[in-house]
Amino acid sequence: MSDKGITPREKNYSQWYLDIIERAELAENSSVRGCMVIKPYGYAIWEKIQEGLDRMIKESGAKNVYFPLFIPKSFLSKEASHIKGFAKECAVVTHHRLRDTEDGKGVEVDPESKLEEELIIRPTSETIMYDTFSRWITSWRDLPLKINQWANIVRWEKRTRPFLRTTEFLWQEGHTVHLTHKESKEEVLDRLNMYVEFGRQYLAMDMYFGKKSDSEKFAGAVDTYGVEAMMQDGKALQFGTSHDLGQNFSKVFHIQYADKKGELKYPWQTSWGVSTRMIGALVMTHSDDDGLVLPPSIAPIKVVIVPIFKDSNREKVLRYTKDVYKEVSKKVEDVEIDERDFVSVGFKFNEWEKKGVPIRIEIGEKEMNEGSLVVVRRDTLERKSIKFGNASDEVISLLEQIQNSLYEKSKELLVSKTHRVKNYEEFKELFEKNKGFALAYWCGSEECEENIKYETKATTRCLHREGKSISGECIYCKNKSTEEWIFGKSY
Amino acid sequence: MSDKGITPREKNYSQWYLDIIERAELAENSSVRGCMVIKPYGYAIWEKIQEGLDRMIKESGAKNVYFPLFIPKSFLSKEASHIKGFAKECAVVTHHRLRDTEDGKGVEVDPESKLEEELIIRPTSETIMYDTFSRWITSWRDLPLKINQWANIVRWEKRTRPFLRTTEFLWQEGHTVHLTHKESKEEVLDRLNMYVEFGRQYLAMDMYFGKKSDSEKFAGAVDTYGVEAMMQDGKALQFGTSHDLGQNFSKVFHIQYADKKGELKYPWQTSWGVSTRMIGALVMTHSDDDGLVLPPSIAPIKVVIVPIFKDSNREKVLRYTKDVYKEVSKKVEDVEIDERDFVSVGFKFNEWEKKGVPIRIEIGEKEMNEGSLVVVRRDTLERKSIKFGNASDEVISLLEQIQNSLYEKSKELLVSKTHRVKNYEEFKELFEKNKGFALAYWCGSEECEENIKYETKATTRCLHREGKSISGECIYCKNKSTEEWIFGKSY
Repeated sequence: MSDKGITPREKNYSQWYLDIIERAELAENSSVRGCMVIKPYGYAIWEKIQEGLDRMIKESGAKNVYFPLFIPKSFLSKEASHIKGFAKECAVVTHHRLRDTEDGKGVEVDPESKLEEELIIRPTSETIMYDTFSRWITSWRDLPLKINQWANIVRWEKRTRPFLRTTEFLWQEGHTVHLTHKESKEEVLDRLNMYVEFGRQYLAMDMYFGKKSDSEKFAGAVDTYGVEAMMQDGKALQFGTSHDLGQNFSKVFHIQYADKKGELKYPWQTSWGVSTRMIGALVMTHSDDDGLVLPPSIAPIKVVIVPIFKDSNREKVLRYTKDVYKEVSKKVEDVEIDERDFVSVGFKFNEWEKKGVPIRIEIGEKEMNEGSLVVVRRDTLERKSIKFGNASDEVISLLEQIQNSLYEKSKELLVSKTHRVKNYEEFKELFEKNKGFALAYWCGSEECEENIKYETKATTRCLHREGKSISGECIYCKNKSTEEWIFGKSY
Repeated sequence: MSDKGITPREKNYSQWYLDIIERAELAENSSVRGCMVIKPYGYAIWEKIQEGLDRMIKESGAKNVYFPLFIPKSFLSKEASHIKGFAKECAVVTHHRLRDTEDGKGVEVDPESKLEEELIIRPTSETIMYDTFSRWITSWRDLPLKINQWANIVRWEKRTRPFLRTTEFLWQEGHTVHLTHKESKEEVLDRLNMYVEFGRQYLAMDMYFGKKSDSEKFAGAVDTYGVEAMMQDGKALQFGTSHDLGQNFSKVFHIQYADKKGELKYPWQTSWGVSTRMIGALVMTHSDDDGLVLPPSIAPIKVVIVPIFKDSNREKVLRYTKDVYKEVSKKVEDVEIDERDFVSVGFKFNEWEKKGVPIRIEIGEKEMNEGSLVVVRRDTLERKSIKFGNASDEVISLLEQIQNSLYEKSKELLVSKTHRVKNYEEFKELFEKNKGFALAYWCGSEECEENIKYETKATTRCLHREGKSISGECIYCKNKSTEEWIFGKSY
């Protein structure tokens, strides 16, 4: 363990992840099983994510709304395959009142407050929304309808890990309704690309994306498209999904519009979402054994200035520090000074490294006399001295370099750990040794997919290439295949 | 009923309110009893409110966080008076799984998934947060702790009305912890003033504010301070509250810090919140029989441009319209053009009036030829022609005038409908005739307060004046009183 209290990745990757979450003060477990508390620093990252993504969502024409937390039980079973995927592990509200216990020391459920129909805490909002859509949509003029919701979601998970899988989590869910399948399919891909763009631009993450297999698709969807990121341990993390719902829901929720001829038609729907899971992906993509590493685009603090002073020069150094702050802040947002005098400079360096602040500026007597400052990059820990007059331009340029370099590193990891395999022996070896993703032909049969999963723990992540020019043998059954898939062990 | 489908206030004030919510497309009932769907236009107002208020909250030093939706049942009963106020009508989660019914046609609660301890959907988050605070706070250096959360809340309400009282609603709740009672009491008042400032600046609403009576205070608080707004029908609407929690919660949740001498002490706490109820207050304060009236500061669309064209001059008028759009947008945000060609101009005017857009710009052949535009104020429906070249400055100035004039109107209503009453006869008459608020001396006894409420339906809203120089007779029992209170019938 480092002096930062972080288990090295090599030693125990899972524990390393948990240590980072704790030491960077992103989140912690609550007294409610499987539910986490998102702490100020973790929530500030979520706000940065929301800010960037919300802008992109609005640019796509979707408008934000808010639908109820509760879903009547009967709604969930309207779409046959939806219920199979979602109704099983969920929080069920059965009563609406507590009463004092007889001994007066506590409270108990009042049996007389039993609900006629149980309410489910939304595991996703298709059903409650589409019930309403059936009243909103009557004419072709009402389409396309594009809405989005930022909300909390509950899925009763047995094994939880902060951000990656929690009983309650935060997400955005977009829902659109279209005149034609062509148009809705375009929307599905546009939003998928939006997530990829967001990942690249803001989170400095490169990712694969494409159609998911039937066994991995959303319950109720015709097709699901996913964005798959690679973590440093070579495992896959599903970053976001975009679903082609076809007319599956419009038919069961009786969403119909009159077309230009006055004929009643069922419209075509999509839904798409990303969640606080992204923060888990972000942590596992860039961080190192010293702690969190954040891309400047979503760092709550981009630059921290640490003055180094003794009692004798305290005032002078702090005055110069404030000059530096003003100079840097001219062009850079989210700059902070760490003026605390009850912890040592070493403690501060450690803390800001653990928290992944992209740039640390150190200022002491020497810098003050020289009119300079020392800048330290969190990602490489490189340090250099720069002139006061160049401070804001240098910092801007360094932030850009860090953002780009993190993205390039992520891209390199993705490429270097993706292996085209020739046969099942190679395939098995790859996953035995946790070398990353495999590119392999697959015939599309569920049987092969299941056997592969059973034997190697690897699953289809998404379709990589397909088409007439693509042809090979299924990695498992050796039948002809025109689809190359990405396989990986997943979180 | 007007041609806008809105019941006049004079005829039925309650129905007028519901009509506005519907016709301005702010919200609608969902299939879940007591829960509303906040529609795009209503949610856009909420986003504007969040944006403005979140900035003020962060300036106060509070940081945003997210705590679990669920509260273990036993937590609620830790603070004796808290449970009395909150545990009674709430949503109780008792199970975590559904299973297929025997006929395979639906789902039912799986009895084997019963939770060991029931979970309550948060009716407010003191208990779940303070359980965590007890681990966050160990030293005097950890104080003050200031956090805030934007979240959904559930209170099982019997009678609901959109925005004013719904089973689920959205709010922000701030929670702070301090070294001294002096400091925490200052925080309580600072946040109270923040809400008043926010109401005045953004919502153009003037309000009373002050300490609430014991019967009206938050369950678990030492003192509650409230902000009370007056609606057009003279009724009071509690706009927000700020609570001095004393050490009531720190003692039962074992929140303790070591002071500079190393002695363990209980800190002092506050909590404060406002909710989507503000939107109800906003609607009822400014709107008229033509629909919603929005203050420019929180209007999702500040200016709507409606081009008036025939087939013959369509292109030319639209080109000029776009020039006007560009000119106005130079200095004004949230400007939109209504280019729809499948509804009439009259329909458009009606629609934007119903939706309360502060300024409508009309552009036709005449304006195009003159290089002018017609601007119409939503609040007064006044119209005037202005020159193209002055457009952005005139619009800015007009938006300011509207904002100020709405505030002045609200202030005037508050003052003109607040009556200092000399005796109980006057007091009763005031409330029989729904003349607004009464200023009256009250001795502070719960008995008088209850009798007044029983006899007149008026309740103490908040303390108006107190102190040595203040002296009078209790409006009910005629005993000596040094406190003048605001009484009102409330929503």
